[in-house]
Amino acid sequence: MNFGCDYYPEHWPEERWEKDGQMMAEAGFNIVRMAEFAWVKLERGKGQFNFSWLDKAIEILARKKIKTVLGTPTATPPAWLAASHPDILRVNKEGIRTSFGGRRACCPNSSTYRTYSEKIVSKMAEHYKDNENVIGWQIDNEFGGDGEKGLCYCQECAKNFRQWLQDKYKTLQKLNQEWGTVFWSQTYTEWEEIPLPRQLETAHNPSLLLDYRRFISDSYISYQKLQIDILRKICPHKFITHNFMGLFNAIDYYKLAQPLDFITWDNYPNLRFTGENKSPVKVSLSHDVMRGLKEKNFWVMEQQSGPTGWQCVDPNPYPGEIRLWTYQAIAHGAEGILYFRWRTSRFGTEQFWAGILDQCGIATRRYEEVKKIGQELMRIKDKLIGLEFPKEVAMLTSYDEQWAFDIQPNNPKFNYQEHFTSYYQILNTLNIPVDVVSIQADISKYKLLIAPALFLINDGLVDNLKEFVKKGGILIVTFRSGIKNWNNIVFDEPLPAKLNGLLGIEVVEYDSLSSMQKCKLKLIHPEIKPLQGECDTWCDIIKCRGAEIIGRYTQSYYKDEACVTINRFGQGCAIYIGTNPSPEIKGSILRWAIEKSRIKSSFQADPANIEVILGRKEDKDYLFFLNHSDKYHQVKLDRIYQELLEKREYFKDSLMTIEPKGVRILCRT
Amino acid sequence: MNFGCDYYPEHWPEERWEKDGQMMAEAGFNIVRMAEFAWVKLERGKGQFNFSWLDKAIEILARKKIKTVLGTPTATPPAWLAASHPDILRVNKEGIRTSFGGRRACCPNSSTYRTYSEKIVSKMAEHYKDNENVIGWQIDNEFGGDGEKGLCYCQECAKNFRQWLQDKYKTLQKLNQEWGTVFWSQTYTEWEEIPLPRQLETAHNPSLLLDYRRFISDSYISYQKLQIDILRKICPHKFITHNFMGLFNAIDYYKLAQPLDFITWDNYPNLRFTGENKSPVKVSLSHDVMRGLKEKNFWVMEQQSGPTGWQCVDPNPYPGEIRLWTYQAIAHGAEGILYFRWRTSRFGTEQFWAGILDQCGIATRRYEEVKKIGQELMRIKDKLIGLEFPKEVAMLTSYDEQWAFDIQPNNPKFNYQEHFTSYYQILNTLNIPVDVVSIQADISKYKLLIAPALFLINDGLVDNLKEFVKKGGILIVTFRSGIKNWNNIVFDEPLPAKLNGLLGIEVVEYDSLSSMQKCKLKLIHPEIKPLQGECDTWCDIIKCRGAEIIGRYTQSYYKDEACVTINRFGQGCAIYIGTNPSPEIKGSILRWAIEKSRIKSSFQADPANIEVILGRKEDKDYLFFLNHSDKYHQVKLDRIYQELLEKREYFKDSLMTIEPKGVRILCRT
Amino acid sequence: MNFGCDYYPEHWPEERWEKDGQMMAEAGFNIVRMAEFAWVKLERGKGQFNFSWLDKAIEILARKKIKTVLGTPTATPPAWLAASHPDILRVNKEGIRTSFGGRRACCPNSSTYRTYSEKIVSKMAEHYKDNENVIGWQIDNEFGGDGEKGLCYCQECAKNFRQWLQDKYKTLQKLNQEWGTVFWSQTYTEWEEIPLPRQLETAHNPSLLLDYRRFISDSYISYQKLQIDILRKICPHKFITHNFMGLFNAIDYYKLAQPLDFITWDNYPNLRFTGENKSPVKVSLSHDVMRGLKEKNFWVMEQQSGPTGWQCVDPNPYPGEIRLWTYQAIAHGAEGILYFRWRTSRFGTEQFWAGILDQCGIATRRYEEVKKIGQELMRIKDKLIGLEFPKEVAMLTSYDEQWAFDIQPNNPKFNYQEHFTSYYQILNTLNIPVDVVSIQADISKYKLLIAPALFLINDGLVDNLKEFVKKGGILIVTFRSGIKNWNNIVFDEPLPAKLNGLLGIEVVEYDSLSSMQKCKLKLIHPEIKPLQGECDTWCDIIKCRGAEIIGRYTQSYYKDEACVTINRFGQGCAIYIGTNPSPEIKGSILRWAIEKSRIKSSFQADPANIEVILGRKEDKDYLFFLNHSDKYHQVKLDRIYQELLEKREYFKDSLMTIEPKGVRILCRT
Ligand SMILES: [Zn+2]
Ligand SMILES: [Zn+2]
Ligand SMILES: [Zn+2]
Repeated sequence: MNFGCDYYPEHWPEERWEKDGQMMAEAGFNIVRMAEFAWVKLERGKGQFNFSWLDKAIEILARKKIKTVLGTPTATPPAWLAASHPDILRVNKEGIRTSFGGRRACCPNSSTYRTYSEKIVSKMAEHYKDNENVIGWQIDNEFGGDGEKGLCYCQECAKNFRQWLQDKYKTLQKLNQEWGTVFWSQTYTEWEEIPLPRQLETAHNPSLLLDYRRFISDSYISYQKLQIDILRKICPHKFITHNFMGLFNAIDYYKLAQPLDFITWDNYPNLRFTGENKSPVKVSLSHDVMRGLKEKNFWVMEQQSGPTGWQCVDPNPYPGEIRLWTYQAIAHGAEGILYFRWRTSRFGTEQFWAGILDQCGIATRRYEEVKKIGQELMRIKDKLIGLEFPKEVAMLTSYDEQWAFDIQPNNPKFNYQEHFTSYYQILNTLNIPVDVVSIQADISKYKLLIAPALFLINDGLVDNLKEFVKKGGILIVTFRSGIKNWNNIVFDEPLPAKLNGLLGIEVVEYDSLSSMQKCKLKLIHPEIKPLQGECDTWCDIIKCRGAEIIGRYTQSYYKDEACVTINRFGQGCAIYIGTNPSPEIKGSILRWAIEKSRIKSSFQADPANIEVILGRKEDKDYLFFLNHSDKYHQVKLDRIYQELLEKREYFKDSLMTIEPKGVRILCRT
Repeated sequence: MNFGCDYYPEHWPEERWEKDGQMMAEAGFNIVRMAEFAWVKLERGKGQFNFSWLDKAIEILARKKIKTVLGTPTATPPAWLAASHPDILRVNKEGIRTSFGGRRACCPNSSTYRTYSEKIVSKMAEHYKDNENVIGWQIDNEFGGDGEKGLCYCQECAKNFRQWLQDKYKTLQKLNQEWGTVFWSQTYTEWEEIPLPRQLETAHNPSLLLDYRRFISDSYISYQKLQIDILRKICPHKFITHNFMGLFNAIDYYKLAQPLDFITWDNYPNLRFTGENKSPVKVSLSHDVMRGLKEKNFWVMEQQSGPTGWQCVDPNPYPGEIRLWTYQAIAHGAEGILYFRWRTSRFGTEQFWAGILDQCGIATRRYEEVKKIGQELMRIKDKLIGLEFPKEVAMLTSYDEQWAFDIQPNNPKFNYQEHFTSYYQILNTLNIPVDVVSIQADISKYKLLIAPALFLINDGLVDNLKEFVKKGGILIVTFRSGIKNWNNIVFDEPLPAKLNGLLGIEVVEYDSLSSMQKCKLKLIHPEIKPLQGECDTWCDIIKCRGAEIIGRYTQSYYKDEACVTINRFGQGCAIYIGTNPSPEIKGSILRWAIEKSRIKSSFQADPANIEVILGRKEDKDYLFFLNHSDKYHQVKLDRIYQELLEKREYFKDSLMTIEPKGVRILCRT
Repeated sequence: MNFGCDYYPEHWPEERWEKDGQMMAEAGFNIVRMAEFAWVKLERGKGQFNFSWLDKAIEILARKKIKTVLGTPTATPPAWLAASHPDILRVNKEGIRTSFGGRRACCPNSSTYRTYSEKIVSKMAEHYKDNENVIGWQIDNEFGGDGEKGLCYCQECAKNFRQWLQDKYKTLQKLNQEWGTVFWSQTYTEWEEIPLPRQLETAHNPSLLLDYRRFISDSYISYQKLQIDILRKICPHKFITHNFMGLFNAIDYYKLAQPLDFITWDNYPNLRFTGENKSPVKVSLSHDVMRGLKEKNFWVMEQQSGPTGWQCVDPNPYPGEIRLWTYQAIAHGAEGILYFRWRTSRFGTEQFWAGILDQCGIATRRYEEVKKIGQELMRIKDKLIGLEFPKEVAMLTSYDEQWAFDIQPNNPKFNYQEHFTSYYQILNTLNIPVDVVSIQADISKYKLLIAPALFLINDGLVDNLKEFVKKGGILIVTFRSGIKNWNNIVFDEPLPAKLNGLLGIEVVEYDSLSSMQKCKLKLIHPEIKPLQGECDTWCDIIKCRGAEIIGRYTQSYYKDEACVTINRFGQGCAIYIGTNPSPEIKGSILRWAIEKSRIKSSFQADPANIEVILGRKEDKDYLFFLNHSDKYHQVKLDRIYQELLEKREYFKDSLMTIEPKGVRILCRT
């Protein structure tokens, strides 16, 4: 298990480094990440490189058996570079160039920025290529983060966007056709006429907007490639990774992950004031999304280890919560945990973004907790590295879909991630392991596939889904699927267009509900327990073209019309849910599908408020019980288990008590 | 009856046009509007004109007996024009020039835009002047729409604004005096010093702001005139219109309407997410405002015919609702109904702004409804063309007043349109026909005149009102009247200044209430039923100078002071309502005034939730009963009637049942 | 008593001036302020000076025994200056230069603006230096007001900011160290690289932000000095002041006040729509803050005298309220009251910012009230000039602290001014006189010192506090104290850092609560009545290092931990309140401290809703009873008193009835 922290020796006097290393070693650390914001410390002025301080920090830590991952420091170019080359800074949608003083303010298409990035990365690579204590690289930091999703509207972006479009469409005629520029007289007659989608009083063409999002995503991917190419060439034996951001969706993470050895991500469960307050299920989903990027285990490169915040301070992690987050990560496939950060900075924007230690550098409650984790992991880590996860249920996503919904949410209440999570959450509660995979993934191995809101579809996707169902899979698709082609153009066929055959239905009409409005429905399938409930957001009115009706509306002018259908297709069946029903209704449909597919839950009982996650290694099942609440909970055990953390055995039918924020790892063979 | 739709053949393959024409003909269509966003299809590059595709579309439709109104396509200049002449695009109040990619982003004062507009309009006019199937022109599209009320802050606007001011005031001395520029040291010593009212941290001079709004309004009027002059010269025998926007108030619609043959407007009753959710009474008011622009019947050039929306989709019209909207329009004077649009676009910003057909092109529920309307109208249209409306009650408005309230709402809760509507709504509920007229209109024909919030007054207006009352009319004026002169300067006389004599009062003090605050009042006039009630927003404290007190406050430190007064003046009387009372209180005052003026309601009973509108033609009364609710309602009839839609007779005292969204047209002779 | 109004003769015909003077004299006025927005009337074009109109106005008033304070008119440079020199206008944080048309839109660092300011001020000074009727000067108007706190981001500011930094830090190395620019690679290698903190998608370095706020504050102070130097030189015998803005905190008011003879301020208690709705206690606090600026009595240069508002009109002062505000001001140390303004302007941005007279110029209810005040003051003014206030309790504040909290509020619910007010309010309710003083003030004279949230500390401050307690004072310090050094860098010692010894505690951890979250605590000190209560916003977890525990949490994972402590230190003691308890809890702690320090309340009983303020003159105590409510209240008197306004005597134990908004001044000898 890679266990350590993110360390900024440059923020502290050299005399302290030895003590830091000592305290880290005592906490069981074996790895740190360093240098990802230290460009000016490494290149004081143009071409004035100096790695000695970093060499020294690496050396001190190495003596404590702590290895180093080096971040390339390109997220924060120095003031001297920004001052002499303001063209490296991004331009916002009003056309105003960003000022120096923040982070990741650079345009990925700036040729100046790329040139200087190449230089610093090459120099670092040359300098550390033979340093055994440097085991890998993190490219830059959190691409796309730090405001406005990393979008840029500068002249170089405009030029590159046009080139990107030319590469994609070859001719303007094709572009005009694929975007439908005849609408509002927007036909382009020269490539140079194509604008970046700057702020308008109305709204841009949605096809242009989607291609712009793809272009910006590709720009970051291309910028990352620039660095990877250098590092692969000079340091072929060190791993390369990047720190992703969970459910953040500004970049196509599948494409960004592709050239990396493995991915890492930054897990901040509790950003109450500065970001979303993530429920534990959102954190679990994030882990699963991250594991799905390369269908491979991952690291947490930054694990929250204290209250966070820039202008305001978030609540302090509850005692035990850092440990809980740590095991939650491991349970979902993390093989590295680095706490962010070693010691809270005394200065700069992140003064209140706490680390394990506070600014005073004394061992805190949080340090003691981390130390305890370190001791535990030292003992059990071999069991937890290389965990594998059941492959019975998958959920399908794509960044293109998410961008299309960013551009057109369809309904103010509709949020793709919330919609996706609402299905994931039911599976999580039922202790059903889930893989979250891309639409390019091999889905043939799964029994049940949930594909929420496939707004955009293409032939390959449709063929894969058909093949999956034909061979016996159960597929669940929800409303706003099959609406548009991959260029964000509505099909000229009855909806859900290319999915009609697979789903055996036609959506003849729909009603987008206003935010206070609800509708009613009932489930009526003979194999599903009759259930009445509510739905909101959207109501498709469905005519069956071969499908059977599972649910009907019981209200509005479309009372008695179908809203949930099932279609036998080959060996399997495809379910369509044409509205957003209550969790009970969704749960009822999912439970039927799970039973029908003979999918096993990780743990039969459903201990309230306890997340149960199953990992497997060498024919052993490890069941992680995670108490996310601040109350004690008891779980009745269905057989004999070995508990790893308490180091005890539990008998069949015994009650296992878990303390607030507590963790248990049960092993069954 | 002109019955049809807005058609964009350029969005669809030519092979489909024939079928479209066929389906239109089957729905009873006899007219379409085309080409108003097709500039680039008509002028592919500078001077490269091509009308063949449009000729063909016109020809195909003509063969189905469908005539064409052509829109001049100037609302959406092509990319080639914007790219080579960015000066055609508007500059926003922060001083940032709009990007290409939207609609109506052009500056009406741009000389380049005007030059290119002249060319395309001239070419079109020349090309179609002898085409019998083209019966008229729509100039541009929805002037002033598409964000920020069409305001522009570019250099050409600045130059033209100064010229406009010079034309108005002749000398700077006069301008300085009329604007009160001595305040805050803003006296101008050269014309070039006068700024456009760009974004400030404080606020501009209100007189400058009002003149700027007038100038921008005049700029659009002048831009329209440019096109009208060309069309009148080249095509003297085709009508010219523009599509207005109901209660939209960025342009002086009276002046914009003046040179047109008749006006049309775009009626979207249900813009829940993308705009205001209009109550039926707001739609009726909009129709009446539109009819008042030229005191003449009108067309609905765009009638909503499906769910609308750009980023989000609005709710679907309820079954019957399109028909209801259609007859509501006719009942208020519409003589043309064109549904927007024939078929929902597959691409572009308005992908979700549905037409009669969806993108798949198949007959929808909405198409069937439109077809039914078509069949009905075919049968009864002769009765419904040329309807006349009773001229007993008028409401007075002006755009100058509205702009002055935009600049200074006086109270956060005060909204001129809501205030105006609150009086209109009472008349609507009482089945009292209303004309909404400009302050220039001939008001002598009415018995009752309601003039809410005459914030700005001028001598002509005061004289007209005095003349009206003197000859026996009843006038109702509400608080915030008589405050300012026509240049937005507060009078130096006791308020309501020039109206003091007519109203017989003096407002010695006022209290602007905060949003949660209410006051109480009672009506005490011997002829009006005593009534206690609440008022909000504003409380004038009135001293009578000849008037009689109708209402007094019963709360606050101005308890017992007058708040509603009546003044005999000549043969008539003038009522002043110095606060914003509850609908019951307003209703009580209005009912008294109606009785006093012997005004007849269209239908004596007041069927709850049913709008009743009266139109007359050739000595016949047509009573439209519109059920805007989604429930059944019954109406007891006071005499024998012929019903036009059901084609049946109703006896006296019989109960007429109207289905949800249903319509009845009763004829009495 | 200086009693009068702010007068704008330039807004009215000269023929009216005589009548204005007459009405003023009848109201007992002896002073007016004039000319502070009249630049263009004094300098029609570059160098074209004309003072004749002002001479005449001064002369007319002088004949009525009314003296003049002249405002230098630099808050509103003329259009001719802005048009020819747009560089005088401020640039906002997006980098956009302000447009002409508002007020105080000038950059204090603009060399052009400074040059023209020097000229107009010198000319005015020369012209009026020997005019006996001009008794003093007001520099400019409300520095820092009119949007965005007067911040500017122009090139001249950037240049001056770098110079200011160079003066402060001497070397870049020092600056880099003091700002911690190593964070995010922001080390500066040339002075020119340092940016102004323009709008970012992330956030600037907090040390840079704090220095920028100090720099802008100093820029206004330096701009004021430019004018003061001229006036002192040319008119050595006239006083110089500026009109401050109460709790407004964009400028270091202690430094701005320093070179003035005395300060004045602008008191608008009731800005409901256009600003905060100030509670009476906020007004009292404002007066006390203003008196503390120079530890000297002051004037109210603008006293609200009618409904205010620009776009919207605020509620009208209740009858008696102007009088109440007047006596409240006097009770807190005002020796001049000028009502804003004489007569409401007919034009310009402030058309609805009412004066004593309305636009029509007739005597209003408000004029009659002012006249009554004038008569009263004429009679009793000698008693009310030169009041002194008990010096037993002080509250400590600094603008640096406030700016640091502006930059980092720490918790969304935390607001420094509200936090400060919550303690002030308790003292106010207990009739305990308070001085509000700067951290530079001599605090040795007080018995009790409350220093809320000393976020930034420096050695001098710590030494003063220690000295104060050592000598027997009681000090109360609240959470978020001792966090940072004066350059906004967190200490690397255990918190509250340099205050540890004095407070005898260590804050080992803290929990920043989210907005709906509360915690519970109880007071447990033997000398304080046991009390349970709630707290919110923030919970420090405290370990005592010598201090005694007064309060403990009774909830959350830090249940039973200390939250309020007391530390004996020398002769006195220091209380630390590590959370934000309910008013009851705060009150209980404060009452104990008051008792302990033997501090006397001004009036023992606590008449609900009546503010009681004590002023002393020549061995007489004057007790002001201010009824801020709109109800009658009775106060039982504890001895015999002379009442000044009613001119009667009250016996011991008699009940004094005070009408709504009423005032009584009791004298005891
Ligand atoms: Zn760029
Ligand atoms: Zn313009
Ligand atoms: Zn500046």
